[in-house]
Amino acid sequence: MLDFPDRLDAAVRRCQNPVLVGLDPRSEMLPEGMLPDRADPTPAEIAAAFGEFCRGVIDVVAPLVPAVKPQAAFFEEIGPSGMAVLAETIAYATDKGLLVILDAKRNDIGSTAAAYARGMLGPGQSVWGADAMTVSPYLGDDSLRPFVEVASQRAAGVFVLVKTSNPGGGMLQDLIADGRPLYRHVARYVEGLAVETAGACGYGSVGAVVGATYPDQLAELRSEMPQTWFLVPGFGAQGGTAGDVAGAFDEQGTGAIVNSSRGIIFAHSQAQYADRFGSSRWQEAVEAATQAMIERLRSETPAGRLGG
Amino acid sequence: MLDFPDRLDAAVRRCQNPVLVGLDPRSEMLPEGMLPDRADPTPAEIAAAFGEFCRGVIDVVAPLVPAVKPQAAFFEEIGPSGMAVLAETIAYATDKGLLVILDAKRNDIGSTAAAYARGMLGPGQSVWGADAMTVSPYLGDDSLRPFVEVASQRAAGVFVLVKTSNPGGGMLQDLIADGRPLYRHVARYVEGLAVETAGACGYGSVGAVVGATYPDQLAELRSEMPQTWFLVPGFGAQGGTAGDVAGAFDEQGTGAIVNSSRGIIFAHSQAQYADRFGSSRWQEAVEAATQAMIERLRSETPAGRLGG
Repeated sequence: MLDFPDRLDAAVRRCQNPVLVGLDPRSEMLPEGMLPDRADPTPAEIAAAFGEFCRGVIDVVAPLVPAVKPQAAFFEEIGPSGMAVLAETIAYATDKGLLVILDAKRNDIGSTAAAYARGMLGPGQSVWGADAMTVSPYLGDDSLRPFVEVASQRAAGVFVLVKTSNPGGGMLQDLIADGRPLYRHVARYVEGLAVETAGACGYGSVGAVVGATYPDQLAELRSEMPQTWFLVPGFGAQGGTAGDVAGAFDEQGTGAIVNSSRGIIFAHSQAQYADRFGSSRWQEAVEAATQAMIERLRSETPAGRLGG
Repeated sequence: MLDFPDRLDAAVRRCQNPVLVGLDPRSEMLPEGMLPDRADPTPAEIAAAFGEFCRGVIDVVAPLVPAVKPQAAFFEEIGPSGMAVLAETIAYATDKGLLVILDAKRNDIGSTAAAYARGMLGPGQSVWGADAMTVSPYLGDDSLRPFVEVASQRAAGVFVLVKTSNPGGGMLQDLIADGRPLYRHVARYVEGLAVETAGACGYGSVGAVVGATYPDQLAELRSEMPQTWFLVPGFGAQGGTAGDVAGAFDEQGTGAIVNSSRGIIFAHSQAQYADRFGSSRWQEAVEAATQAMIERLRSETPAGRLGG
């Protein structure tokens, strides 16, 4: 198996787009009929509905995009049955040829961090079997190293939170220390890990989460982190536009994947798709929203240079 | 049910000690005979052994200490069966009268953070049912608020990582911004949340994780955060002594709980207990190590003023 950065590079080039579809199942937003028509479905019923919904999304997007990003929190909320469905969902996506980045934002130190990494990273080698996972950097270098080591052993990847898309992200991330904001300290460290773990494509197994809602910082970080894959959240529902994420890409149109969750998976409830498709044809809404995002990124960012 | 800070205050005063026993099950360190005698036990077998081991620890420590702290990573590593045993372990500890702080170090934003909080917080109200959980602050205020809101609704607590015990913790936490290290920025914000959520005892539902390995900072933070419960890791195996943690307590000897994991639960494999008890009498080793820690904290810190 190729190393993660090379698998991701190949998938983006094959699909000729950098779209990362977020799998964030939420009970209150599922298409009609997936949950039992009662006020209080059991965790097992919710888990089954989440599984059906995620498989339905995967069936639609697998021929179109390089990767999906399940959000661990929504599965974990419903307990062990949710975590079992998370593992099944990851396996299903992998079988369909998608790369899977587990959005878990885990962090801990030493052997505890390694336990998370061993549990989550490596298709066929761990319980959850993700190709990559997100991690949080507050605990410092000895909290990131164990994730990187397990990832390296298993040809998997790690995305470290650098500059997040939420309004409150700046509270700590923008504090200025030694003349630079905190997130640039993290960025420099992450770029070092990316260089260490670089694959044939030039990018490393260690990537960075950099939000679409801060376009100037995105471009600044792109030049500061030339060997780091970017995972860009905040597109669509959070306000980031295709123009905002243009700075995330390298000159070839690679180096970044752009996430949309609600904007794609719950497209059936959005004004522009609700009339055309409605809840019963929710998968057609997913396809239309995915195609629309692909087109916008192709026409307004360097991702258009990927071909097609 | 009393709010979390008042339940913790009452438990510490009832037990007359601030010991927090960490439940960090590790396959390679379990007492002999708990795992099947084969090279490759199944996840279900490991989960069953973790459950047996944790119940065994809880049986010993429940009459002695106020609280336990399961480490989510070790349960999560073995998959959904591990997560099911985590829930059973938390329920077992709760039944035995212990408070349970789930060491999950979760973090995310908005409704995603709320999903973690709803899943984990509130005995009898969530799947995992913990009295409190640990969270990481890198994502900023809008990542912490959802945890605090769910905790407030459920009379539960949240401990935010402020100054961690690991050697690499300083990489980001000690960076100086606006004349103060980053961890003091976090500390100030956490103290604000603690004041907002203060219970009858004066301490809030929002606490801070402050490592035993930085005694000067511990004392400094105690005076800067007069209404914040401290969860102090790093005692024992990580090098922190009773003298090192003395600064964590208020004048009444409350306001802090001190964690030991390996030093207590795997005492049977330590030099000073191995000869006396060995693996077959591992629970006696747990009891002796717990009593020794209680005595050291009573004799060398303000926790001695709790009575007894």
